[in-house]
Amino acid sequence: MSRMIILTEAELRKVIALDRDTVDCVEAAFAALATKAVAMPPILRLDIPEYRGEVDVKTAYVPGIEGFAIKISPGFFDNPKIGLPSTNGMMVLLSSRTGLVQALLLDNGYLTDVRTAAAGAVAAKHLSRESASVAAIFGAGMQARLQLEALTLVRPIREARIWARDAAKAQSVAAELAGKLGFPITATSDARGAVIGADLIVTTTPSEIPIIEAGWLEPGQHLTAMGSDAEHKNEIDPAAIAAADLYVADSLKQTRRLGELHHAIDAGLVAGDAVFAELGQIVAGRTPGRTRNDQITIADLTGTGIQDTAIATLAFARAGAVKAGTAFES
Amino acid sequence: MSRMIILTEAELRKVIALDRDTVDCVEAAFAALATKAVAMPPILRLDIPEYRGEVDVKTAYVPGIEGFAIKISPGFFDNPKIGLPSTNGMMVLLSSRTGLVQALLLDNGYLTDVRTAAAGAVAAKHLSRESASVAAIFGAGMQARLQLEALTLVRPIREARIWARDAAKAQSVAAELAGKLGFPITATSDARGAVIGADLIVTTTPSEIPIIEAGWLEPGQHLTAMGSDAEHKNEIDPAAIAAADLYVADSLKQTRRLGELHHAIDAGLVAGDAVFAELGQIVAGRTPGRTRNDQITIADLTGTGIQDTAIATLAFARAGAVKAGTAFES
Repeated sequence: MSRMIILTEAELRKVIALDRDTVDCVEAAFAALATKAVAMPPILRLDIPEYRGEVDVKTAYVPGIEGFAIKISPGFFDNPKIGLPSTNGMMVLLSSRTGLVQALLLDNGYLTDVRTAAAGAVAAKHLSRESASVAAIFGAGMQARLQLEALTLVRPIREARIWARDAAKAQSVAAELAGKLGFPITATSDARGAVIGADLIVTTTPSEIPIIEAGWLEPGQHLTAMGSDAEHKNEIDPAAIAAADLYVADSLKQTRRLGELHHAIDAGLVAGDAVFAELGQIVAGRTPGRTRNDQITIADLTGTGIQDTAIATLAFARAGAVKAGTAFES
Repeated sequence: MSRMIILTEAELRKVIALDRDTVDCVEAAFAALATKAVAMPPILRLDIPEYRGEVDVKTAYVPGIEGFAIKISPGFFDNPKIGLPSTNGMMVLLSSRTGLVQALLLDNGYLTDVRTAAAGAVAAKHLSRESASVAAIFGAGMQARLQLEALTLVRPIREARIWARDAAKAQSVAAELAGKLGFPITATSDARGAVIGADLIVTTTPSEIPIIEAGWLEPGQHLTAMGSDAEHKNEIDPAAIAAADLYVADSLKQTRRLGELHHAIDAGLVAGDAVFAELGQIVAGRTPGRTRNDQITIADLTGTGIQDTAIATLAFARAGAVKAGTAFES
């Protein structure tokens, strides 16, 4: 018989929020990736083209952490037609010592949303100018909302633009976030206009064609691309990757295969074996982040299993502290 | 909100047994692998050497089946020292149409044990002589027991030998199975002796050094090796693979990397790109199995995600029919 705790999305929302603690937790995970003997195997990916479905399974083991998460992330892009969200999923937290299941985190993708946004904050903290105050967010989904909120945790944001192809969607998200965050947020479907004068740009779309051209980027800007987590996705002009003063991957192994970098390699603009800094190395102080105010910096975030292990471990500890969840024996 | 059914090991044991239906289910899965556009990505594997731990995650999608399983199989080999089983795990069954979690099968490895044994029966049915009646089982663990039981479902077994390095263990398993199966079963720690005169040989050990030498195999024998599911495991003399009249893989992609075949390739006895039949092709009648009574045949079973999807789907359907399980919303 094995005993585990089942935590529902509602219970997880009570113990984990997108706040400074969560950013610290994800930041520490990136540092571990650079400094510890982390085991993070390649993502398992299953495609179900009949239903425009895909599933990613990610995991990572960090020495010294008692548990490790195995995350199942389905994305089924016809779901909205039948009133279901495209993305959902869950995490299984296993003991690092025994492999026994400690907890089932039935988060419907909530923890992924939060840890992804937190990684955006970590990238902004280490790569954007300290005074960065104008943000341009590309996309009008959940991540667009969360990325802007995450930026406010690490930079003195006082103005934002929301870009979406669908102006009405952009308008609705801008209005919602302006109410919540208390600074002016404009909506636009002019991508170039959104970039002009922004200090921080975050792309959160599932685009397969670049939205941001290399020539648009201005000295001093930081761009985080977090929409690409699969070979066919591409938000940023490959020339921008090659031209950036500093390109940073969450996992170079992954961005060479799945991220914006992979399109720059395919286009022959970057060598397939070119070495770039990883975010964790910068967080851990092993390699410099931004060194001058006029640099153009790009963070390419594909999402890593270590973020999942970090947030699942935090959620489980917090749930334990307040005795949340249902014990289940099998 | 998403609704799922949670099934415990006890509930799963009530609806799934190692019987003819289960063998048919796994046999159909192998046929699908050969005849349908099955998506079966490479196994995700995480190693935790500090605790002699490993975790495999397997999945497969079969067009036409409503769900697909993602199976998490941990093996932590120091667990018995603290009174826990080495292997455990669970399966998550997701809808092929929406990616939503349909069921959590908290089987502690039970379904894996059963589907693995059933694959042994499928191999024996298609590769051993129809009259095969003497079985030699190598190993004294759960799979040793189940493989012998599985053979009795497809062949007229009337005598068996159980080999283990530890004669006392072999004795105990032999006595237990003789009582259960009703035919004579002897225990031995003489590997060669166990092979002599056997019609069917099944190896179920985690050995890293071959137990069975090529020269021991006799015309007409069928050998199923199912212990090797990782690079370092090796039960069969690589020369036996090269010398067999018919070598069959469960998944050639996997056995080239993880199975007995991989050691024969490493030893330079088989070309890395040599093509062999897969069990599913034989089940589906696309390539012949055994064609003569004097052939030596070898099946190399590393375990495939399609077996998990097949048995999880059967278990979920049967549980639904008897309204077993606990509904959970999140």
